[in-house]
Amino acid sequence: MNFLEKRIQKDGIVKEGNVLKVDTFLNHQMDIGLFRQMGEEWKRRFEGTYINKILTIEASGIGIACIASEYFDVPVVFAKKSKSINIDGSMYMAEVESFTHKCKNQVIVSKKFLGPDDHVLIIDDFLANGCALQGMISIVSQAGATLAGIGIAIEKGFQPGGRTIRNLGYHLESLAIVDSMDAAAGTVTFRTQAENTTGEAGAAAYTGHVRG
Amino acid sequence: MNFLEKRIQKDGIVKEGNVLKVDTFLNHQMDIGLFRQMGEEWKRRFEGTYINKILTIEASGIGIACIASEYFDVPVVFAKKSKSINIDGSMYMAEVESFTHKCKNQVIVSKKFLGPDDHVLIIDDFLANGCALQGMISIVSQAGATLAGIGIAIEKGFQPGGRTIRNLGYHLESLAIVDSMDAAAGTVTFRTQAENTTGEAGAAAYTGHVRG
Repeated sequence: MNFLEKRIQKDGIVKEGNVLKVDTFLNHQMDIGLFRQMGEEWKRRFEGTYINKILTIEASGIGIACIASEYFDVPVVFAKKSKSINIDGSMYMAEVESFTHKCKNQVIVSKKFLGPDDHVLIIDDFLANGCALQGMISIVSQAGATLAGIGIAIEKGFQPGGRTIRNLGYHLESLAIVDSMDAAAGTVTFRTQAENTTGEAGAAAYTGHVRG
Repeated sequence: MNFLEKRIQKDGIVKEGNVLKVDTFLNHQMDIGLFRQMGEEWKRRFEGTYINKILTIEASGIGIACIASEYFDVPVVFAKKSKSINIDGSMYMAEVESFTHKCKNQVIVSKKFLGPDDHVLIIDDFLANGCALQGMISIVSQAGATLAGIGIAIEKGFQPGGRTIRNLGYHLESLAIVDSMDAAAGTVTFRTQAENTTGEAGAAAYTGHVRG
């Protein structure tokens, strides 16, 4: 297991309905030392890829993206969620559905901050159905920028987001891929890391006990 | 002028209605090198103060707080904005009015992450009327925690938030205090830094030209 899988096993909480709570270290309280390890690992996985900007989305992607950017030495832009439908011409816009909050948000990025010269690494905390990520990819595309890669902390491998993104040929690096969770037993099964870069599910996997 | 005042003078945009746009480096695109300077400066200004947690509020406080936390080596908790009125007993809650967005938000922090043993540094990007800050102070107080200090990037010194907080005796360190802005001339007048810690407006001030 890598550092993030170990941390999920130690401090994550599995709830009914395939909910994985990681609010003690990832998306409410934030362990900055852990974020540094994540940044370092993405730097290693995207070695040799030219990146000049990181794009993330509010709110829980921001901290991870900022710490990760210290390993890439590039500015970070965060996409803003907006309820407003009056977006003037100065913004790229994508519509993003939230399964957690059962609502649609418009996601906006000022045209000042993304353009054809940009090679963008998208960073976010979770990938499940992939709606937020698809919105960010759409914005990168609207800008005429190059999508250099996608770094995700925790991917729910049993939901379709990651598979779709890999099928589309994007370079996606999820630091922990959860293939299944069992709330009653309090266990999480991770996809083995060697398979992370190909996206193929293999026979080798391990199950960790997580507080239920 | 310090590094942040210089940056505001160089890249800030003054708009009618006392609006100061700093989205190229602070709250949409984020200059992480600048955030490091801010963290270093807060570390200097809070030298000798015991701090074991940083509290901020989504969304634009998060990046600044995370980078600043590297100088304090403490975890960061961000208060979440919530429209929901069904807050169970596991959360501290404060009501926060937004002048920018003309709405009220509930702001919540899980009780797991703040308690009587915590010595909290609050970090945020802007202080104007101080509603978001008052909500965070209320949450620190509900938790029985100690408010060790408040670090703000840009304070609008002509609005009452900062004065109120200083009158209440809190240790507030704003890295740039804007005493006035002129949209027509495109100028910003900063309070001189020596006065930052006392909050007294003095005769000495300087005016910088900012793009209008």
